[in-house]
Amino acid sequence: MAEEVVQNKVTFKGYIDDIPKETDMELKLSNLELNPPPQGSAAILVKNLYLSCDPYMRGRMRDFHGSYIPPFVPGQALEGFGVSKVIHSDNPNYKPGDFITGFTGWEEYSLIKRTEQLRKIQPDDRIPLSFHVGLLGMPGFTAYAGFFEVCSPSKGEYVFVSAASGAVGQLVGQLAKLHGCYVVGSAGSKEKVDLLKNKLGFDEAFNYKEELDLNAALQRYFPHGIDIYFDNVGGDMLDAALLNMRIHGRIAVCGMVSQQSLSKPLGIYNLFNLISRRIRMQGFLQSDYLNLYPRFLEDVSNYYKQGKIVYIEDMNEGLESAPAAFVGLFHGKNVGKQVIRVAHE
Amino acid sequence: MAEEVVQNKVTFKGYIDDIPKETDMELKLSNLELNPPPQGSAAILVKNLYLSCDPYMRGRMRDFHGSYIPPFVPGQALEGFGVSKVIHSDNPNYKPGDFITGFTGWEEYSLIKRTEQLRKIQPDDRIPLSFHVGLLGMPGFTAYAGFFEVCSPSKGEYVFVSAASGAVGQLVGQLAKLHGCYVVGSAGSKEKVDLLKNKLGFDEAFNYKEELDLNAALQRYFPHGIDIYFDNVGGDMLDAALLNMRIHGRIAVCGMVSQQSLSKPLGIYNLFNLISRRIRMQGFLQSDYLNLYPRFLEDVSNYYKQGKIVYIEDMNEGLESAPAAFVGLFHGKNVGKQVIRVAHE
Ligand SMILES: NC(=O)c1ccc[n+]([C@@H]2O[C@H](COP(=O)([O-])OP(=O)(O)OC[C@H]3O[C@@H](n4cnc5c(N)ncnc54)[C@H](OP(=O)(O)O)[C@@H]3O)[C@@H](O)[C@H]2O)c1
Ligand SMILES: NC(=O)c1ccc[n+]([C@@H]2O[C@H](COP(=O)([O-])OP(=O)(O)OC[C@H]3O[C@@H](n4cnc5c(N)ncnc54)[C@H](OP(=O)(O)O)[C@@H]3O)[C@@H](O)[C@H]2O)c1
Repeated sequence: MAEEVVQNKVTFKGYIDDIPKETDMELKLSNLELNPPPQGSAAILVKNLYLSCDPYMRGRMRDFHGSYIPPFVPGQALEGFGVSKVIHSDNPNYKPGDFITGFTGWEEYSLIKRTEQLRKIQPDDRIPLSFHVGLLGMPGFTAYAGFFEVCSPSKGEYVFVSAASGAVGQLVGQLAKLHGCYVVGSAGSKEKVDLLKNKLGFDEAFNYKEELDLNAALQRYFPHGIDIYFDNVGGDMLDAALLNMRIHGRIAVCGMVSQQSLSKPLGIYNLFNLISRRIRMQGFLQSDYLNLYPRFLEDVSNYYKQGKIVYIEDMNEGLESAPAAFVGLFHGKNVGKQVIRVAHE
Repeated sequence: MAEEVVQNKVTFKGYIDDIPKETDMELKLSNLELNPPPQGSAAILVKNLYLSCDPYMRGRMRDFHGSYIPPFVPGQALEGFGVSKVIHSDNPNYKPGDFITGFTGWEEYSLIKRTEQLRKIQPDDRIPLSFHVGLLGMPGFTAYAGFFEVCSPSKGEYVFVSAASGAVGQLVGQLAKLHGCYVVGSAGSKEKVDLLKNKLGFDEAFNYKEELDLNAALQRYFPHGIDIYFDNVGGDMLDAALLNMRIHGRIAVCGMVSQQSLSKPLGIYNLFNLISRRIRMQGFLQSDYLNLYPRFLEDVSNYYKQGKIVYIEDMNEGLESAPAAFVGLFHGKNVGKQVIRVAHE
């Protein structure tokens, strides 16, 4: 007889237009038999260890089917990147005890039918498992592909990163430093600014919430202007950066977290600078660069093991903490990469 | 004794913040002795034949010294691209009777001291001299460099051009057609739309002034979306195009003539599409590509002589018509490239 468990799930209540609230999600208990997946299904049953809270998930809470990823299904568990341990497998590529990372449910155990996009993790004592949704997962890869493939960086260039202490931003800044750039980050608290300067090796950092005039702030930190703006936030900061770009500057448009929850985004007024300064503004999705993933894994794992980079996680304990942690992203509550520990390894 | 003439000049009255008006310029008479330039000056004295009216000149009417080109000097003649005939020369590269094109004054005769950027014209019966400020001049080169170097076009792609019947736009559309693209243009009158469809070979064209909803108009003309938007106007049309770009689309940001005369530009609200559709938005100035000028001259002259492209000029007669013609650019009065004939060849 299969073991029967009572498991917790975080379900999606229904489509929203506003900034996410904890009440948009609901914790539900359900019974589950830990049966092996049906023969021929090629599915795997996993125990989820870590779940990732990512800003893009906000987009899946809208009733909009035209995006690169479909919306969540009301009443069902949320879905996101996770690190999981295989319990049962009907798939020759996975065996019980394997660690995997990829899309899974916001629940304790998940039956994963679409296994093509999973990645098997080779356990390594020197690298925490949870890093596979952060430093070595989608956010880290976004930093890597975005910085090297989109920003066309050169040694000595002036780089600005917004949401700089976050999952993506902290790696962008460190990669830029390793590349020989001068790097300034913005973040939303004194604690984050201190981390940027003292732990993450940024040359300078500032708390944008304490700046009345973002243009003046950027002028202060970039008296010679910005060569590369890695934009995680959009909105006013993007508009101010446009005023401070250097000739032939590049803006990697990675995210617009400041706009994601506004029903009408803020207007951007300074695009004329694109012409006079010959700026390239490039939107990108990390998923377009997946062919680079093996090189990324190797490069960034090595940097980490050699102590050349660090990575800050914000670890919440227990699935029940997930809704608040997710909502917290949009208020800057997370300090570093936001992860939920669902179960201990 | 040198011949003495009374010449007309169009002088710049003073800095403006608003849309240019005829009264921002003044016609002045002055006496001039047609002396040879001083020995050792390397200057040339020219008779101006054609002057070009270009939207960027509006930027030189602002009291702003941080741009890629300095402002006009109040009280002095305006300056712009022209086609001129050499009368006297102290420069071994030019002799009386030569035709040249480059920066000259808005006056009948000019003493040109900075001759480095002039280009000597090889007269060719099959190519009107005035084309050297249009099809074969800066606007034509802008179309060529902007389309081939910035848009990364492929055969079969969907191309949208705004201000499509203008000096730049009409060539962009024709080059795109020659390249095997599907091309739609927008312009501000029925007459221009007819020219686009019947003379310039665009697949479709529409009068944006008759569209209440630019997004709906673009959806109608591009049911599969836009691969390349060659943007001459900025503002609302850019915002609507952002909603209609295809994945991996490109926007060449050439000009923002709709915004150039507004003291505060309109906001742009749809930049989020840059990310979800991975769009590259690239501002450019033709002057960054001048190394391609010889190839451009050869290619486009040949296309023209072979009848593969046409070029529409709007020719005004006499220097005294220049202020109104220049102002007319910002009201869409010009039909095709706006040129002033100062004197007959
Ligand atoms: N293009 C892609 O393929 C791709 C992939 C992954 C992520 N992204 C994008 O990258 C960005 C960063 O993602 P992440 O995972 O690294 O998230 P994160 O930075 O770890 O967390 C989000 C952070 O955004 C900041 N923020 C929240 N609301 C804001 C507001 N109104 N204005 C300014 N900042 C605000 C907060 O930091 P502060 O306290 O500093 O404000 C918050 O901590 C997001 O926009 C995300 O959508 C894009
Ligand atoms: N980046 C570069 O290196 C470079 C070089 C040359 C030119 N440019 C830019 O390219 C654009 C086209 O220049 P051009 O020489 O070819 O000029 P043009 O199109 O021959 O003349 C300007 C045209 O702009 C349109 N226009 C005027 N006001 C407008 C408004 N409020 N909204 C929309 N359209 C408006 C009018 O056409 P309609 O009747 O169709 O509205 C007008 O005929 C300009 O923005 C210019 O600044 C850039």
